[in-house]
Amino acid sequence: MNLTELGGEFAFIQRIARKPKSAEVIAGIGDDCAVVRIDEHTLHLYTVDMLVEGDHFSRAYFTPYDVGVKCMESNVSDIAAMGGQVLYGLISIAFPDDISIDFLDELYRGMYEVADRYEFDIIGGDTTHAERMVVCITLVGKTSPSRLKLRSMAEPGDLIAVSGPLGGAAAGLRLLQEGIAGYTEVKRYHTTPRCSMNQLDRIVPIAKAMEDVSDGLASEVRNICMASGVGARLTRENIPLCEGICETAVLLRDDPYDYALFGGEDFKLVYTVTPDHYNRIVGSVVGEITAGTDIVLDKEKLTRFGYDHFAPNRINGGVP
Amino acid sequence: MNLTELGGEFAFIQRIARKPKSAEVIAGIGDDCAVVRIDEHTLHLYTVDMLVEGDHFSRAYFTPYDVGVKCMESNVSDIAAMGGQVLYGLISIAFPDDISIDFLDELYRGMYEVADRYEFDIIGGDTTHAERMVVCITLVGKTSPSRLKLRSMAEPGDLIAVSGPLGGAAAGLRLLQEGIAGYTEVKRYHTTPRCSMNQLDRIVPIAKAMEDVSDGLASEVRNICMASGVGARLTRENIPLCEGICETAVLLRDDPYDYALFGGEDFKLVYTVTPDHYNRIVGSVVGEITAGTDIVLDKEKLTRFGYDHFAPNRINGGVP
Repeated sequence: MNLTELGGEFAFIQRIARKPKSAEVIAGIGDDCAVVRIDEHTLHLYTVDMLVEGDHFSRAYFTPYDVGVKCMESNVSDIAAMGGQVLYGLISIAFPDDISIDFLDELYRGMYEVADRYEFDIIGGDTTHAERMVVCITLVGKTSPSRLKLRSMAEPGDLIAVSGPLGGAAAGLRLLQEGIAGYTEVKRYHTTPRCSMNQLDRIVPIAKAMEDVSDGLASEVRNICMASGVGARLTRENIPLCEGICETAVLLRDDPYDYALFGGEDFKLVYTVTPDHYNRIVGSVVGEITAGTDIVLDKEKLTRFGYDHFAPNRINGGVP
Repeated sequence: MNLTELGGEFAFIQRIARKPKSAEVIAGIGDDCAVVRIDEHTLHLYTVDMLVEGDHFSRAYFTPYDVGVKCMESNVSDIAAMGGQVLYGLISIAFPDDISIDFLDELYRGMYEVADRYEFDIIGGDTTHAERMVVCITLVGKTSPSRLKLRSMAEPGDLIAVSGPLGGAAAGLRLLQEGIAGYTEVKRYHTTPRCSMNQLDRIVPIAKAMEDVSDGLASEVRNICMASGVGARLTRENIPLCEGICETAVLLRDDPYDYALFGGEDFKLVYTVTPDHYNRIVGSVVGEITAGTDIVLDKEKLTRFGYDHFAPNRINGGVP
């Protein structure tokens, strides 16, 4: 049996996860970060992301600086999704013999720029050899029990909000894959995304469940629903789309909402709030949490979701 | 310019490391672990190791269980080298489509066995796709300011001790690479090493500088010397060799002490102690710390050291 037959990445994670023995572990495998108690007022967050050349980025589309920015922003996004700030980063990198120092300098310039933006130190890592480049970033973050956001905190009646426009990363990837010239701004959504960390202080006081949009809005809403034991109703026309992606969709005969729902890698935050906080919402309301377990888009029950590296049917909003 | 022309992995690490801004960072890039202050009595340790199929392990030599054990023991060894205990682990893994669930189950059985041995939880990670398997383990450890061991703590007159016999991993690799049947016990030094964590409570009270033997004794002693601004004198015949490796050396016409000095991956601890602690030493005394900067083996100044993935001359004690 291989992983696809098992049911994909999610089924695999379920299979390998074990209940932690330590009472200090608030959340283990299954959220954007692991959460452990340091003292009464302090929680630490740990997140790791591995990016593999060819799978997550192509040197044909990405400058080395872009790779650095994207790797780091996507990890910072995971810390933001828990209501945290980044304390420290560790960078592990494997690369082939023939890589140039200029390439590595540019890669690290991208990573350090993001570290400087969010004011954290790079304090360790590992350097080794591989035929294809692999970058694995570990971040240590910090939050407090009152600021912590878990996927499991949504309740029926909550509104579902997103912190910014979606779909840009998938639209940009489509343009790059089709080899279409121009559309620089749209391509940049894919190559150098920016996470929502800077909006966090306005979102944390009102958010209940939260997650970052790394695998498409539909997938993230499903994760929140599964963890919270609830359903959701999404309204397509309320999903905010990144500027310029409708032109891309017309050109490539795609549905731009598919980019947002199933594309992923936008690294905005999706979060739930009670309706009385409506006026304080940062971003846009795209739906609401319901009783039950169905995830409904307009009037149709959703049966496909975001990207799974090993899913039985890899569906990615038209984005292979 | 590529990395070999730059001067190898060490030169690269020097190039990318920056001085941390946070006052809580006790040690950043350049020791076995990064060290940060949590409170007056508590330090946290972070270490990451990336193992790449083909570079660090071969599925021809290793069962998936072996890969799991080796990945995890080698990381635990880094925490031990700082005088710490492991608190938590995060496992990131990338693998090809066609990998079997049986393979992954065995891999995780190996990793969890080590986690159980040293009593820590696996609390997160990442799962993704790659053509060749990559395993990246992050460990979070804990120590106290009085137990912390840095490479920089050696002084002239200290004795240099190793916690157990060396050379087994390199001898085992040689046998595997040469395709020689039998010698199961020697091969096992390479495939399923065991670190020295269980001796730590007897070593920490006497050790000053400490490091684990991942790249060969000569390389580790050099690291301690460079960080402490001292030299060292090693005595070849005092280096304890793993049982059975002299037969391997005779068979393959190698020098068994080269396995210990330049081979690496034995994951024992090398540490310095003042001579008044001689009777409490765990393991064997192999030399002493001297003034100056030379590292002398018997009467000869050492000019080659352990394994560097990108060194201008890759020398690995006869082990390619």
